Amino acid sequence: MINDFIYDIPVRVYFGRDQLKHLTAELKKYGSRVLMTYGGGSIKRIGLYDRVVREIKKAGLELFEFSGIEPNPRIDSVREGARLCKEHRIDVLLAVGGGSTIDATKWIAAGACVDHDPWDFLDWSKWAPVNKALPIVDILTLSATGSEMDCGGVISNPATKDKNGRLDPHLLPKASFLDPSNTFSVSAYQTACGAADMMSHIIEVYFNMNQDLYMLDCFMEGLMKTIIRFAPVAMRKPDDYEARANLMWASSWAINGFINGGKAQLWSCHPMEHELSAIYDITHGLGLAILTPRWMEYCLDETTVSKFVQFGVNVFGIDASLQPMAIAKLAIEKLSAFFFDDLQLKRDFPSVGIDDTHFSAMAKKAVRGDTLQGFKPLRQQDVETIYKMCMS
Amino acid sequence: MINDFIYDIPVRVYFGRDQLKHLTAELKKYGSRVLMTYGGGSIKRIGLYDRVVREIKKAGLELFEFSGIEPNPRIDSVREGARLCKEHRIDVLLAVGGGSTIDATKWIAAGACVDHDPWDFLDWSKWAPVNKALPIVDILTLSATGSEMDCGGVISNPATKDKNGRLDPHLLPKASFLDPSNTFSVSAYQTACGAADMMSHIIEVYFNMNQDLYMLDCFMEGLMKTIIRFAPVAMRKPDDYEARANLMWASSWAINGFINGGKAQLWSCHPMEHELSAIYDITHGLGLAILTPRWMEYCLDETTVSKFVQFGVNVFGIDASLQPMAIAKLAIEKLSAFFFDDLQLKRDFPSVGIDDTHFSAMAKKAVRGDTLQGFKPLRQQDVETIYKMCMS
Repeated sequence: MINDFIYDIPVRVYFGRDQLKHLTAELKKYGSRVLMTYGGGSIKRIGLYDRVVREIKKAGLELFEFSGIEPNPRIDSVREGARLCKEHRIDVLLAVGGGSTIDATKWIAAGACVDHDPWDFLDWSKWAPVNKALPIVDILTLSATGSEMDCGGVISNPATKDKNGRLDPHLLPKASFLDPSNTFSVSAYQTACGAADMMSHIIEVYFNMNQDLYMLDCFMEGLMKTIIRFAPVAMRKPDDYEARANLMWASSWAINGFINGGKAQLWSCHPMEHELSAIYDITHGLGLAILTPRWMEYCLDETTVSKFVQFGVNVFGIDASLQPMAIAKLAIEKLSAFFFDDLQLKRDFPSVGIDDTHFSAMAKKAVRGDTLQGFKPLRQQDVETIYKMCMS
Repeated sequence: MINDFIYDIPVRVYFGRDQLKHLTAELKKYGSRVLMTYGGGSIKRIGLYDRVVREIKKAGLELFEFSGIEPNPRIDSVREGARLCKEHRIDVLLAVGGGSTIDATKWIAAGACVDHDPWDFLDWSKWAPVNKALPIVDILTLSATGSEMDCGGVISNPATKDKNGRLDPHLLPKASFLDPSNTFSVSAYQTACGAADMMSHIIEVYFNMNQDLYMLDCFMEGLMKTIIRFAPVAMRKPDDYEARANLMWASSWAINGFINGGKAQLWSCHPMEHELSAIYDITHGLGLAILTPRWMEYCLDETTVSKFVQFGVNVFGIDASLQPMAIAKLAIEKLSAFFFDDLQLKRDFPSVGIDDTHFSAMAKKAVRGDTLQGFKPLRQQDVETIYKMCMS
């Protein structure tokens, strides 16, 4: 069943080494008062901060700064950023960083246009409408979340132990600057976590028993092969431009909506992981890597095996003449080997300091009190079982 | 070598069966005076004309019409369309048809904004600047040229025996309506020619010895597999929605610029074919199907064999353990079998009424007086040889 869909991704992407010369022309489309948002000092260490400031000053724009956005960005940062936008009558936001910085900047952009608490946008019980947002331009420094080309952002609220995400077209960046060399300094561990996150974005869409457009399945398989091929290269050789470039462009296309076509299906591993990292503050991609193979094992049966066979044959090159169930199991093994051997990620909850204390509460939240309508519908009990499978 | 590029495809695509309800909202963004452009009677036969007129009248827009745009659209149609735009002070163009109608409409849109002859845009000796064009919305009825998502248009000038194309961002449609069921009535022959055109769009980019982004090669291989799989299905079963949908979305992505990344290389088979169809008025896709395997044979040598191997293994599933040259030759055979057996296209020039009368003149024009800097640089003599190879 091929569903209708609307394709609309008007973000302009400047890809490559020598694109920053276009930065101020993009910013000037929206005004002269720029708030640059970023996280810690990494953009200073790689010289990016200085280059950006130089470009902006040269162009005669007024620059304001908001730094300290944390990984798994928090609602307090959004509140403070939105306050600064109002105080300085900001025209355009420039997010310089990875997905966390861009996600936070999206909600700052929306928060700047309202009088209420920005958390009201993300609180399921309120879900305040997003009618407007300041324009956003970004310079990406980490290939992972795809925030540079989508309209979503995930924010944590430590007070309520929530970690909520939301999509809204107003949040789509106007322009994104993707220079793979800005990711040369990303550590092997963060590169691995980014790769796991990207893989999961694709897997959440790919594992769907409603056959949509074959061409999109082919594209997803190509993206997964790209990540599997180049993430280990980038870990071994951090300044390998080809590897970094493939990972960077793949990160955008893994989640900008193109691969979905008309598929509508809730995600599975992401909601399960969000509950983890809301409590434990572990890196998102690491949580996904631990969860995904267990979730696959849990979902594999006679009704779903054909999708695992397609995955195993087309992504891992497993011999198509083997028995379907054997191919499926081998595919899960190969994915595990990719996550835990090639990417060298920790393989279970105990190794990352997670015990079973909160499983029941996390599972309840993950299914939003009822059922996660993903690849296989999961109820609280199912999610708890999957969490338990991650203990060994 | 991975070159920089700018990705910017702001066209909004309404894909599916039930999207025409969005048509008038799109048109109204640009004004109230609509010129609907189309070719012959096919849009009336399938009921599309009536549906469109009904929607437009219901919305209170003023509708003007320009019909009779021919396959391989001619400059006289562009002139007349541009004249009508001026006479009726048209706000927005609605192209309903295949690539020919959309291509002509693009140049009508540009011609409507200037006082000079629209051919000046396409005459290499003049190349008048395109500074403006009326907004274009289209409803696609044939999967082939990708004009619905790119900014190019090819126009023939019978007076000068020229067939020239040009890209310009002003010509990009604002919105395209892609309903696969609007292609159910496309004949097996036109479906085959469209598939050959799409294959060629991909092959022109894929066959490049500068390794660009691996993920884009994967995507191109997926597109080619999609066309090879579904074109024969659509020929046998014209109302197979899945086949028509895959072909339709693939046609857009084969040429909207995404697959290019930063690759800059002139095309080879298209310029050679344009000279053919400028004189013989044969269907573009048919000419490409005849030329492509011969061009491949001509280009295959020790320096290029690796690309053919990649193509053969990843697209046709040829055993990777064979000798490279054997894989390459087998790949060309399989592509020929696709064109001439599966798609049932005529396999050489004599079968379509082309003799060697104009080879020399056409070859000279194809290389623009010097060299075609494609996959392999081709001089006039090379092109003549490839034309001769098409005689048997």
